[in-house]
Amino acid sequence: MKRVAIGDVVLESGECIRQVEVGYQAYGTYDREANNAVVVCHALTGDVYVAGDEQRAGWWEGLIGPGMPIDTNKYYVICSNVLGGCYGTTGPASLCPEDGKPYGSRFPFITIRDMVRVQRRLLEVLGVEQLYAVIGGSVGGMQVYEWMTEYPEMMQLALPIATCSRFSAIAIAYNDAARQAIQSDPEWQGGDYYPAAGPRRGLSVARMIGMITYRTAELFEERFGRSLQATNDSDPSQTMFQIESYLRYQGEKLVDRFDANSYLTLLKAMDTHDIGVNRGGIEQALSRVRAKVVSIAIDSDLLYPDSHQRDMADLMERLGKKIDFYLMESKYGHDGFLVEFQKMGRIIKPYFDR
Amino acid sequence: MKRVAIGDVVLESGECIRQVEVGYQAYGTYDREANNAVVVCHALTGDVYVAGDEQRAGWWEGLIGPGMPIDTNKYYVICSNVLGGCYGTTGPASLCPEDGKPYGSRFPFITIRDMVRVQRRLLEVLGVEQLYAVIGGSVGGMQVYEWMTEYPEMMQLALPIATCSRFSAIAIAYNDAARQAIQSDPEWQGGDYYPAAGPRRGLSVARMIGMITYRTAELFEERFGRSLQATNDSDPSQTMFQIESYLRYQGEKLVDRFDANSYLTLLKAMDTHDIGVNRGGIEQALSRVRAKVVSIAIDSDLLYPDSHQRDMADLMERLGKKIDFYLMESKYGHDGFLVEFQKMGRIIKPYFDR
Repeated sequence: MKRVAIGDVVLESGECIRQVEVGYQAYGTYDREANNAVVVCHALTGDVYVAGDEQRAGWWEGLIGPGMPIDTNKYYVICSNVLGGCYGTTGPASLCPEDGKPYGSRFPFITIRDMVRVQRRLLEVLGVEQLYAVIGGSVGGMQVYEWMTEYPEMMQLALPIATCSRFSAIAIAYNDAARQAIQSDPEWQGGDYYPAAGPRRGLSVARMIGMITYRTAELFEERFGRSLQATNDSDPSQTMFQIESYLRYQGEKLVDRFDANSYLTLLKAMDTHDIGVNRGGIEQALSRVRAKVVSIAIDSDLLYPDSHQRDMADLMERLGKKIDFYLMESKYGHDGFLVEFQKMGRIIKPYFDR
Repeated sequence: MKRVAIGDVVLESGECIRQVEVGYQAYGTYDREANNAVVVCHALTGDVYVAGDEQRAGWWEGLIGPGMPIDTNKYYVICSNVLGGCYGTTGPASLCPEDGKPYGSRFPFITIRDMVRVQRRLLEVLGVEQLYAVIGGSVGGMQVYEWMTEYPEMMQLALPIATCSRFSAIAIAYNDAARQAIQSDPEWQGGDYYPAAGPRRGLSVARMIGMITYRTAELFEERFGRSLQATNDSDPSQTMFQIESYLRYQGEKLVDRFDANSYLTLLKAMDTHDIGVNRGGIEQALSRVRAKVVSIAIDSDLLYPDSHQRDMADLMERLGKKIDFYLMESKYGHDGFLVEFQKMGRIIKPYFDR
């Protein structure tokens, strides 16, 4: 991963974060003449490693890499860690330049729009003025929606996947249950827990809630049903179902790799995501779009129902925008955008075959 | 509420709870000749007050009472608090007869079947040998499933509503997220928190998780959308959505009226609910049924999908049972069984018009 300093960042709220650093990863070679830059926006707990390399697997390696639908032999692919994150970009665990101590509770409220502005600044620093495409799923897709409305002239293609133009009430509800789980953990200490590990149990519960909503009842039934974990005694009160074991494992795994304050910061950014805000509404916001939009929804997505993305596609159509809408069938629910490489690849490949 | 001692209860697990007491409420007058007794089974956090009276509203008062579809001028209606509960029947907060101290962590693992056996014992004590009907929704409906398989000769009519014959993987998953929230709260103290209030924040988070799953995305969108609570400052990080305020209020409200250990005890009973256990499977279990079954599913129920109840109805049909299946349309999701009095009333009234 590379890191660059992009200077002070003034947020939508008017607050300023001093001396912001951005962690990013780039694949392929930039070719200004060919306009071959592609920005990938990652999801809630994602990192910058979209394509695989010698050292690690990439979370979208089935889509991005040499010979893949987004071919890094042709495209220059950049993925940066979001503002507020904990994988290289300034976030709550970063040291505040003013006193050299972690921000903790002092880290300001940020929006999806702020994240995108930071990405834009990164491109300036890298000397990338135009993009071929911006692509992302889930929270990454919210960033795509912001990209195509905030900087409409900057890209030819925008691909929001399994996402929304504004966050729904039930999604806010699940986020708040997760938030309460984290903030109820005494180890959270109001956000000022560094250098301690922080609210491990609360974050684990938050992740469990997330993991349930990312998939579907049918998939859990098929994969786990009522199967029991092997236990070494006959005490039925100690019985553990495989689904429980799976979820607890997922919760604990996240705790080892993610900062709770970053999680809270990103949840709040999701909650406040609404491309219509300060733009006169959704329709006014979408009127700005200049890119060709390739919108992909997942039929089994409980958090970001396909009906919403279809409504947005219909609206863009009425506004005279270039919009292709795809409904992807998947049994994986929302997580389909991280799993269904073949199906997504078939959809997006033609748009990257130039 | 009345309370009766029903003696020691040996559980399915083989453990014994000494000197169990049962809290119950009865409405109407028992008429043995007319076979007019109806048992109502309550849901997770429900109590014994099904019908309204001078002192309070009843949680099914639109269905049960004088002149209602289950008319207490004709029927003798009994609702008892479940074993393990905290509304009158022996549960974790009760005093253990051996040392006069609350059970706390010593309260044993119980099953839905154990609850039903306790209800059966209560009826013996009350001198009720035969029932006209057993009815209940959600966890109450699980009890109905157990009633009709465990004591098939005892009732003419069984009405399971918005429920299941065995608990699904995703429902176990949500229960475990709730359980982890409670058990992660240091105030839980392994279950031995009495006389302190216990894990208030954990229980509140658990309730929030439950409340989200009891309704639907559409209903939350319609009722709350992205509306904000009025706030007294312009700090956007302090913004609270109405849905958040609603959920937190629901969480806090439950904490004031429910015991966390009872909640845990009942979650575990739900998880292990499977009428096929120790009976050779679901089909063998349903082969025992003698009652006429009136099964009501809610089309928008996310926790207990109508497809499951329809499958059970089809199976009973194939087994030659008397089964009427109703799909109730409701925008209230699972909570429909507590809300849709008119629709449920229209369905059940004919079965109680004798």
